[in-house]
Amino acid sequence: MLKAPDHQVAGHQAHAGKLGPLVDGSGCFYKPLQSGERGTIEAAFYSSFSSNSKVPTHIRRFFPTFHGTQLLEASDGSGMHPHLVLQDIVSNRLDPSVMDIKMGSRTWYPQASEDYIMKCLQKDRESTSVALGFRISGLQTFESEKLGYWKLDRDAVQDFTLEDVKLTLKRFVSSNPSSNAEPDCLLASTIYGGSDGILAQLLELKAWFEDQTIHHFYSCSILTVYEKAGVGEKGSRSRTGAEVKLVDFAHVVDGKGVIDHNFLGGLCALIKFVSDILVSSTNRSKAEGDLKEQTEEIEFSIANDSKA
Amino acid sequence: MLKAPDHQVAGHQAHAGKLGPLVDGSGCFYKPLQSGERGTIEAAFYSSFSSNSKVPTHIRRFFPTFHGTQLLEASDGSGMHPHLVLQDIVSNRLDPSVMDIKMGSRTWYPQASEDYIMKCLQKDRESTSVALGFRISGLQTFESEKLGYWKLDRDAVQDFTLEDVKLTLKRFVSSNPSSNAEPDCLLASTIYGGSDGILAQLLELKAWFEDQTIHHFYSCSILTVYEKAGVGEKGSRSRTGAEVKLVDFAHVVDGKGVIDHNFLGGLCALIKFVSDILVSSTNRSKAEGDLKEQTEEIEFSIANDSKA
Repeated sequence: MLKAPDHQVAGHQAHAGKLGPLVDGSGCFYKPLQSGERGTIEAAFYSSFSSNSKVPTHIRRFFPTFHGTQLLEASDGSGMHPHLVLQDIVSNRLDPSVMDIKMGSRTWYPQASEDYIMKCLQKDRESTSVALGFRISGLQTFESEKLGYWKLDRDAVQDFTLEDVKLTLKRFVSSNPSSNAEPDCLLASTIYGGSDGILAQLLELKAWFEDQTIHHFYSCSILTVYEKAGVGEKGSRSRTGAEVKLVDFAHVVDGKGVIDHNFLGGLCALIKFVSDILVSSTNRSKAEGDLKEQTEEIEFSIANDSKA
Repeated sequence: MLKAPDHQVAGHQAHAGKLGPLVDGSGCFYKPLQSGERGTIEAAFYSSFSSNSKVPTHIRRFFPTFHGTQLLEASDGSGMHPHLVLQDIVSNRLDPSVMDIKMGSRTWYPQASEDYIMKCLQKDRESTSVALGFRISGLQTFESEKLGYWKLDRDAVQDFTLEDVKLTLKRFVSSNPSSNAEPDCLLASTIYGGSDGILAQLLELKAWFEDQTIHHFYSCSILTVYEKAGVGEKGSRSRTGAEVKLVDFAHVVDGKGVIDHNFLGGLCALIKFVSDILVSSTNRSKAEGDLKEQTEEIEFSIANDSKA
């Protein structure tokens, strides 16, 4: 029984008779091959990547597992259509928070057509891509059983400024994302921080991008995913399932012996933002901790004074 | 007594009645302020940078020392003209090898005029900037007393392909740069390698660029400089004076709290090339060393055999 995914935050969606991805609820994500060379390129990428012995094992976890292609009834009712069979990244999650970040200051590549280049260049200039090296394409953050998800779709993010991006990276790990108040970043140390948190995973990816010259990943997205329910459970950092995944490879080109400086530059900018949020939230917790300690000391000395 | 510099490899030159930089032969480089906002921006950059306490001391050595501005007789005979008074990077060198590398996949910045953006974009696409994240703007390598310098001026480098750039980065540290034969990279381990060689300096600069959000350095160049005479002198690595310097700040803009991912991406690509040259030349020396050892062992056993 295939159906449209519940937690898709960007890209074409299989709603209202449109062609879009489907999930089977037991771990597979069926992505319709895009028309023209985009579909060919993405299928070729998954096929070559999954069998490339030069890709280190610890890097494979950042890519959805590939299970080949399959002819399926298309979601738009247009008949049979070839689909990529991929790992469904959120299949065993209850209330996943997901952010889609389109990487690169430039989403066009030199070999593309002039029309395509000019269209991409305009989008890159209108969005934060040129300024930041990436843009947020969509997100959902689970707030609470009562409030449900705080969501930003394509329309909501398309006019994002630098300040909007900074704020959204904070809201994504806050207990009060939908509030107009300053995001509290209460989940930052658990989700962004830690030895296998989002930041550590981004740094691992960065080290690979400083060296790999196999592929250039134009218009590719980083997904950051986690499970709020896992936060706060003692000794269960892994229960948050904080995870970084790369998706969307319809514009991957041969690296020709050069590193992907365009993706890498944006990745470094993202790392710096995430790391700044982590530092300031840690400092704040520390300051609050210090304050609490001071307060307790004062209370203790007051209590002692009153005894004396 | 001011004169045109002997070792300028790129940029406007003070020849044939043209406006260009002058040197005094005792350590100062006088750069005429460019017209319009370019001159204003560069003077403002030097002035603010030299007094900015947020710039770490170990990073300052990558920038020419700034000694203010001064009105001087212009090299084109047009009368008095304001000049930046800067450290002359090659003043106490005998036969400096110099390479000028214009950094960034993109030499334009969002705030620039549409005409300027389109002009830069075209140059970036025609050169290796888009593909590599940098382009070589000119170089000279000292070959020998007899052959003098191997030079590539602006015209020679403007049609450079990826392969030309790779080859030139090898030739820059070869004893046979002007030859059509494969560059021997004999100087690679001394100039690129070592604890204070070019690669180590580039890595130090990279660490700063991963963190600094003060300036974005559009159209800025990295100069790599060394002295061939120093190579091979025992215990005198420092005599080669292998040095990395940043120059040309007429298009520096406010970083607005974002890292300079455009410069950083190109820097990472450059680092990867330099590091590959170093690894393969070290492997070759090692292979040649192994071969020499094997040959000596064989000769030794032959000699012993004939004695027996």
